[in-house]
Amino acid sequence: MSPSTVDPADPVFRLHRGGKMAVASTVPLTSREDLSLAYTPGVARVCEAIAADETLVDDYTWVSHTVAVVTDGSAVLGLGNIGPRAALPVMEGKAVLFKQFAGVDAVPVCLDTQDVDEIVAVVRALAPSFGGINLEDISAPRCFEVERRLDEALDIPVFHDDQHGTAIVVLAALRNAATLLNRKLGDLRVAVSGAGAAGVAVTKMLLAGGVDPARVVVCDSKGIIGRHRTGLTDTKAELAAVTNPDGRQGDITEALRDADVLIGVSGGRISEAAVAGMAPGGIVFALANPDPEVHPEVAARHVAVVATGRSDYPNQINNVLAFPGVFRGALDARVTRITEGMKVAAADAIAQVVAETLTPEAIVPSPLDPRVAPAVAEAVAEAARRDGVARA
Amino acid sequence: MSPSTVDPADPVFRLHRGGKMAVASTVPLTSREDLSLAYTPGVARVCEAIAADETLVDDYTWVSHTVAVVTDGSAVLGLGNIGPRAALPVMEGKAVLFKQFAGVDAVPVCLDTQDVDEIVAVVRALAPSFGGINLEDISAPRCFEVERRLDEALDIPVFHDDQHGTAIVVLAALRNAATLLNRKLGDLRVAVSGAGAAGVAVTKMLLAGGVDPARVVVCDSKGIIGRHRTGLTDTKAELAAVTNPDGRQGDITEALRDADVLIGVSGGRISEAAVAGMAPGGIVFALANPDPEVHPEVAARHVAVVATGRSDYPNQINNVLAFPGVFRGALDARVTRITEGMKVAAADAIAQVVAETLTPEAIVPSPLDPRVAPAVAEAVAEAARRDGVARA
Repeated sequence: MSPSTVDPADPVFRLHRGGKMAVASTVPLTSREDLSLAYTPGVARVCEAIAADETLVDDYTWVSHTVAVVTDGSAVLGLGNIGPRAALPVMEGKAVLFKQFAGVDAVPVCLDTQDVDEIVAVVRALAPSFGGINLEDISAPRCFEVERRLDEALDIPVFHDDQHGTAIVVLAALRNAATLLNRKLGDLRVAVSGAGAAGVAVTKMLLAGGVDPARVVVCDSKGIIGRHRTGLTDTKAELAAVTNPDGRQGDITEALRDADVLIGVSGGRISEAAVAGMAPGGIVFALANPDPEVHPEVAARHVAVVATGRSDYPNQINNVLAFPGVFRGALDARVTRITEGMKVAAADAIAQVVAETLTPEAIVPSPLDPRVAPAVAEAVAEAARRDGVARA
Repeated sequence: MSPSTVDPADPVFRLHRGGKMAVASTVPLTSREDLSLAYTPGVARVCEAIAADETLVDDYTWVSHTVAVVTDGSAVLGLGNIGPRAALPVMEGKAVLFKQFAGVDAVPVCLDTQDVDEIVAVVRALAPSFGGINLEDISAPRCFEVERRLDEALDIPVFHDDQHGTAIVVLAALRNAATLLNRKLGDLRVAVSGAGAAGVAVTKMLLAGGVDPARVVVCDSKGIIGRHRTGLTDTKAELAAVTNPDGRQGDITEALRDADVLIGVSGGRISEAAVAGMAPGGIVFALANPDPEVHPEVAARHVAVVATGRSDYPNQINNVLAFPGVFRGALDARVTRITEGMKVAAADAIAQVVAETLTPEAIVPSPLDPRVAPAVAEAVAEAARRDGVARA
């Protein structure tokens, strides 16, 4: 059976038949009286009140608990540029996870354009209907510009999950791994393999969380990024400016020599020999899915803690630990944007959930742990108030 | 209390607190197995299948039962141009009515632009996420161009409810009123007061339904429309070309002289004297809401059947009789567009529900009558197949 063959009796296709979500009314609609309150003529008074004071839209519509999950279908899972329609099952999945874990009502918005200006214009135009914008599966480097421009233009939170969701969970996991190994974040030598959306965001998040930029090297498909490299995108040039001050050059094997931490977010293969070159007692997060950069059992021969993106190995680095709680907290505090402080607070909250029960096989909570989203939401809302971006 | 004062204890504001709708998951999400089917890695196979055959998006996502309710907030109820945020309570109300009456999952999309080109571009871009587009509360004449251009650009149904929803229910009501009075539609002399979105659509619908264009006059705020008028918009020029062949001129009082039917969709006042000038045994639909063009009790002194837009008088002409069933039928038949034939079929189906129990106080079903939407859906789907616009 080819990967695109549809077998309607297959459990996956059976489950997805008709989609995975629905809209529900939260008000009664069975009598004329109900209709006259929920719709005309009653609704006109609510409209007039909001017209007179637009902030009331938060109190008297669903925007305060609603997020758009926006994609252009250009970088869907590991499948690449499959377009907006083929991306929809993922966005629906995301939406139901938002609901399940944090009570956030999310709506998939799959766009029939991959032009940055058009994406920005469309999302700006539809923003009044939503309390937040979760960008999803938009390819690098366009995703950076889309997010930056929307973040500047809108006064609601904008969050590219492939970047920041991954980065938050990585920071949480690295904090706990360091604690377990009795190491300080600031002392760890870190090699990041991959400089796409996730690699860039992970690197920035680690620096915000306390990793020393002088001890970080980032590799893309051409090797270690540094000031010696020419023709870098803006984002990679930024990385070159703050990391790798010693000007190391070479491939991932060179980057891993004596490193304490490997964070793989590239999908490129990493040899056992390269991992064997790491410092003793190291940490490997091989996050490519479904095929980790190095097999976790192979990595475990050489390092002390291993995590992957897979559900069938210990320590699954899964964005679902972050995005539901991040948006719940952001919506609860009615934030105007998502700050670095809020992301670090989210990572700390995730780490804290299992801080008392750390083992090498449990540095992050299970994706199904119901304690996570509420803890993240509370930490994010608090950080938003501290950072002065909360309106409630 | 001014109309925009918020009293949180008021039943209307209590009901609208937090909005009126939510998203629900229709799949289980409690085990790792559930997650791996609904989300990664299972979902990737559904994405690949749709990437290989885009028509599968109808089977394996929620688009087949999902409609966007799109507004720019420029003509909301009778409140005028109150903007996208103040329009949201109405769009949520519409969405919950879609769900309640026809099981259609509708999502409010309130746009932060009133530029026709931008509205068209935005709706085109987000169309892959939805099975249909319900345009709502967009002011004339922009609404005509927005609808026409989207209808041409998209292969899913596009329907401006303020035009066609109203027009369908008016045709249904007029059919039953004529039957009750033992008159033929083609013999009735009809005066339409109002040439905005609803007036234009009502006139076209009546002609499609069998009213004789030679017996129709339409009035706007400057009086009877005809070939004598200059500076008409395209839409009004079209009306001038097909109605009023005798070249009648004057105001609504002149238009009503010896008319059998008045259809008020303007909000302008119409005097008792003008109604008194109608032919005996006439029909008045005074649809402005909350203040009908002529009070129904006043009209009843001079005509045989009176209808309004209000829930507290008999014969409420309410769009909810049309739009849920129209979209249910359009989605069920996976239509590429909404034809005149589908609209006429919807009107006939609405009329038919009460055809055996007609009285002057019951020419249309109650807005809460559960028989209406399924009957409309079936009639619309059948008409779509007849008209060759159905894909299922």
